[in-house]
Amino acid sequence: MSELIQPRVLKGFRDALPASEIERSLLTETLTRTFRQFGFVPIDTPALEYSEILLRKSDGETEKQVFRFQDNGGRDVALRFDLTVPFARFVAEHKEELYFPFKRYHIAKVWRGEKPQAGRYREFFQCDFDIVGSDSAAVDFEILALMKAALESIGVTKVTIRLSHRGVFNRFLARYNLADKSEDVLRAVDKLSKIGAEEVKKILSESCGEENAERILTYIQGSGTKSEDYKATLNMIRDMAGGEAEDTKRLDDIRTLMEETGIASSFVLDPSITRGLDYYTGVVYETFLDELPSIGSVCSGGRYDNLAGLYMKDKVPGVGSSIGLDRLMAGLEALGQSAAREGFTEAAVFNQDARSMGAYQKLAHELRLAGISAEVFPEAKKMAQQYAWAEKKGITWGILEANGAWTVKNLATRESAEGLDTKALIHHLRRQ
Amino acid sequence: MSELIQPRVLKGFRDALPASEIERSLLTETLTRTFRQFGFVPIDTPALEYSEILLRKSDGETEKQVFRFQDNGGRDVALRFDLTVPFARFVAEHKEELYFPFKRYHIAKVWRGEKPQAGRYREFFQCDFDIVGSDSAAVDFEILALMKAALESIGVTKVTIRLSHRGVFNRFLARYNLADKSEDVLRAVDKLSKIGAEEVKKILSESCGEENAERILTYIQGSGTKSEDYKATLNMIRDMAGGEAEDTKRLDDIRTLMEETGIASSFVLDPSITRGLDYYTGVVYETFLDELPSIGSVCSGGRYDNLAGLYMKDKVPGVGSSIGLDRLMAGLEALGQSAAREGFTEAAVFNQDARSMGAYQKLAHELRLAGISAEVFPEAKKMAQQYAWAEKKGITWGILEANGAWTVKNLATRESAEGLDTKALIHHLRRQ
Repeated sequence: MSELIQPRVLKGFRDALPASEIERSLLTETLTRTFRQFGFVPIDTPALEYSEILLRKSDGETEKQVFRFQDNGGRDVALRFDLTVPFARFVAEHKEELYFPFKRYHIAKVWRGEKPQAGRYREFFQCDFDIVGSDSAAVDFEILALMKAALESIGVTKVTIRLSHRGVFNRFLARYNLADKSEDVLRAVDKLSKIGAEEVKKILSESCGEENAERILTYIQGSGTKSEDYKATLNMIRDMAGGEAEDTKRLDDIRTLMEETGIASSFVLDPSITRGLDYYTGVVYETFLDELPSIGSVCSGGRYDNLAGLYMKDKVPGVGSSIGLDRLMAGLEALGQSAAREGFTEAAVFNQDARSMGAYQKLAHELRLAGISAEVFPEAKKMAQQYAWAEKKGITWGILEANGAWTVKNLATRESAEGLDTKALIHHLRRQ
Repeated sequence: MSELIQPRVLKGFRDALPASEIERSLLTETLTRTFRQFGFVPIDTPALEYSEILLRKSDGETEKQVFRFQDNGGRDVALRFDLTVPFARFVAEHKEELYFPFKRYHIAKVWRGEKPQAGRYREFFQCDFDIVGSDSAAVDFEILALMKAALESIGVTKVTIRLSHRGVFNRFLARYNLADKSEDVLRAVDKLSKIGAEEVKKILSESCGEENAERILTYIQGSGTKSEDYKATLNMIRDMAGGEAEDTKRLDDIRTLMEETGIASSFVLDPSITRGLDYYTGVVYETFLDELPSIGSVCSGGRYDNLAGLYMKDKVPGVGSSIGLDRLMAGLEALGQSAAREGFTEAAVFNQDARSMGAYQKLAHELRLAGISAEVFPEAKKMAQQYAWAEKKGITWGILEANGAWTVKNLATRESAEGLDTKALIHHLRRQ
């Protein structure tokens, strides 16, 4: 036998042990049910694509972070680094097969060679949902309503979704001749929650002058940080941008739909939300946990006016959002709301005598038919070992054979019932 | 604007459009529920690993097919080509954190640079389930029982699981001094269903002589191809292998458990099943659709005595199986049992007047709260276009506003009900 290989994963990669994989599975299953309730359908795209497809529009920073190589056929290929670029390619390639408005969700892995640091991995899940083929306020609203419903479905009820509109901001910048400074301004504004208003003002003063820095600060701070301040803030930024236009009307329409459906209180109009240098052209939004805003946005997105422009001439407008699953799971854990558990087994049939294996397996079989997840300890090992296994796995019920009948114990409370036949046992477990 | 990039995927890769992705999602969700009922838990491992870890034990053939490259840090890495090697590494790396017997399922993508051909892709899903840490007949039986239950759960009831034992076969070969020919023999026997008994005999005669070829043919054909022939075939191969041993006792024990749980009729003892050159050491099995055996095995596996031997000294015996999801989906489609559908939306709220958007969204919101998946057509386009969209998406109910009340139409049968308020509408939809 040759030397052993050290079992290890690559730097920045990780295994998911059962507890965390169960948590991720349960979260994505619940999110999936909500997406479907809103009419969204799943798609999938390859993990590996032509580098040309994935990288054409990227800045140098993205390119450096991508896992890119020549395959055995000499093709220049790369692992996808997000789910948006492949979706754009997908829409262009399949537009004749799709129906519009097209609503898709996609929960899958992406890869980036980022410098590993706390909470940053080179392989992680993205959870995207988009509506393409409509430029209406209705679908802007639907994505926002879905964000709220999706987070609620996984128990995240104390959230604030902060939205804004890039169009209003651009009009405001143009009005003060700052359009050519917009990259600098967006970069600075994006730092507001991290470095505070004073520091942002300093940076802005350097590129735009003090008066304009003041103006921008006033704009991005709006008229208040509560949901009720929506209209006041809208009035204010409308004035600062030079009056009513499609963009301000859109923010008004979205608010009306929120009020009519009774979900307005979760949404704040926050002009400091710009999503930095992202490709958004309309509404943009970020979502913060009320009890843990410091971890940053757990669900962000916005409207783009031309998703697949690199791949086809037709313009496909869309609006989408992405849940940061890893960040959200870290947040839930910090709030004591983690859904992590070690297993799904409700009942363990203990093994006191290997000759009774047929009876044990028959019982497990009948429990499963009755909808109770069950397993048999396969070997007649010491009871202490079997109990330890059941406890480690978080199993609720332990079942033992005694005098030709079943005894069932609640492994947490130690309560038990004796002398049950299989039917009575199933009845007992179902009553709990 | 620069030139457009042709939207296309790599050769051997493919997108999943909604209908096929929905089918795959529904199948894996149902399989997952069954795995959990049997006490299995999910894990995940990285798509990318050190080549050293993935390729150490591989033959040249595997190596040629692997997507392998140097990452930006100069590491020799590869995309996983199956879920077994990463699982072996996982068990060695985390053995202190796991509990044994450990039952895991893992449904995820793997990549192989195989020559693309009908039904063969370079990226595909594997669906593996294994029990490691026990060498008992109980867990051999559990995997077999789970295979049957998992296939049944997705509507595949007419199947035959054919099993055998590599140990008995090895004893038989050794008895006739054919142990050193075992690779040739396994390769030839594996071709039985493809080329027939006569051709296999010809090949075997060349390497083992005519008398032994005859003997091997007799052995692998057993005493019959029905479930009831199990014991007769077992008696026959026991004799041919030189009498009772652990291996034949194991086949007997497994059969007893099948009979005691009432599932024996789906299982056939078929000594021609050997799984070729795979690493199995105990029971081995393959599964065929009764109505479409020609597509080959849809679920195969077996027992191995040392899963993680490359990575640690402790021996971890195990038994596992893998469902060929793509092949199974192709089979279900050929049998008219495909679960493909275009969407999950039950009710579409049509848009006759954009000014009523608030009322439409409020209705959709209330339908969802009542557990009915619903969506609003976002723009007041022509009704023909809205009906076409709803039909394409497979939506059952169309809802229209008329005189301040709702009209609901079954889009397939054209039956309708008029003058409903929201409560009456929900009642109407629930009654169906």
